[in-house]
Amino acid sequence: MNKKMNLLMFSCDYDKALAALILANNGRELGLDVTMFFAFWGLLLVRNPEMTSFEDKSFYEDLMGILTPANPEDLPLSKMNLSGIGQNMLKKMMADKEAPKLTDFLQGAREKGVKFYGCQLSIEVMGFKREELLPELEVMDAKDYLKDALESDLQLFI
Amino acid sequence: MNKKMNLLMFSCDYDKALAALILANNGRELGLDVTMFFAFWGLLLVRNPEMTSFEDKSFYEDLMGILTPANPEDLPLSKMNLSGIGQNMLKKMMADKEAPKLTDFLQGAREKGVKFYGCQLSIEVMGFKREELLPELEVMDAKDYLKDALESDLQLFI
Amino acid sequence: MNKKMNLLMFSCDYDKALAALILANNGRELGLDVTMFFAFWGLLLVRNPEMTSFEDKSFYEDLMGILTPANPEDLPLSKMNLSGIGQNMLKKMMADKEAPKLTDFLQGAREKGVKFYGCQLSIEVMGFKREELLPELEVMDAKDYLKDALESDLQLFI
Repeated sequence: MNKKMNLLMFSCDYDKALAALILANNGRELGLDVTMFFAFWGLLLVRNPEMTSFEDKSFYEDLMGILTPANPEDLPLSKMNLSGIGQNMLKKMMADKEAPKLTDFLQGAREKGVKFYGCQLSIEVMGFKREELLPELEVMDAKDYLKDALESDLQLFI
Repeated sequence: MNKKMNLLMFSCDYDKALAALILANNGRELGLDVTMFFAFWGLLLVRNPEMTSFEDKSFYEDLMGILTPANPEDLPLSKMNLSGIGQNMLKKMMADKEAPKLTDFLQGAREKGVKFYGCQLSIEVMGFKREELLPELEVMDAKDYLKDALESDLQLFI
Repeated sequence: MNKKMNLLMFSCDYDKALAALILANNGRELGLDVTMFFAFWGLLLVRNPEMTSFEDKSFYEDLMGILTPANPEDLPLSKMNLSGIGQNMLKKMMADKEAPKLTDFLQGAREKGVKFYGCQLSIEVMGFKREELLPELEVMDAKDYLKDALESDLQLFI
């Protein structure tokens, strides 16, 4: 299929991230051109788990790095998170059905050529250094996002 | 109007479900072809209220059936739910204006021919038996969803 | 660009409202025709901060006016709101980068000619008087929204 999908990933909820990455992986398998634009909390999905920097950061930027999970597997659910009990329950239920984990779908999306973009303003405001995010992520502003989304056949805000 | 709308219903919030079903009903009244794809929490909207099964289920699947409301009228609000006080308040305010209830809009959507699809992976992971969901619901995977959404003129993630 | 964007603003989260208004402002700068349709909680974004009426209102309608913020700057975050601490932190981080505030983006959208519509049913159910909402807001029903969205090249539910 010679079509294009654009997902604006605003949320960092574990379950919504799963939904978005499942769509992205399946889109690539159908031959779609897939763009994911990570903005605000969505950036927590494309953090480099092995790199958290505290250099040249303000107090609030440090706090943002400390209070938010560096590993996507630790992201909360949008509902029934129950301080992590619900999230663990969902993970166990997925493992019972031999469904891949969030990080597997993320890795799949990277390998299948989903294009990853990060919102410039969000990166600046949250104080992320470039090396704290996945290396293939490209930085884009809201106008670039709009141009890409307007050319797409399917656009979702997640 | 010879057009098509596709709603991906991910959330189970009472207020978001109302919004989605109001759009679906109005879409049908305008002559649109309307598809609703229920995934993750969205499946709680299309449970058969008279059928909760505990047979052949794991502990977690039982728990999922117990912890989540079997009747859509008991779903929480996305904001100001306040342990159900806010939800009751919204219902009373709607009744004051003689607006239909969520279950009325759901029934309307069923009668008007909105097409109901359930996400295969979500159904498996949450452990729902087929008979626990509305009889007209068809099971679909993410690729089927994408094909339907790509053919639509309006697609929303709710 | 001779294209059209339609944003259905359902949420009243400070961060989601920021995202929507940044898209709306940038859309207008690119020459897009931009429509924002405010429904349910989204109406809290287009309240007239200087006008809260308690006349001819039911108890619940009064309560809705009291419990919800009249000024968009007081809206909560979708995540990590922490009773307002997180919201203040985000505002300070944005000020550090000299990013405009939510009300600046809202004012920008008004001046740039983003079209503001309010959902008729939501206004009735929440009991807002016309003068409690921004003067340029036009009232529209779900069918009008659908017609506008179906003519658009990019539609998001936020």
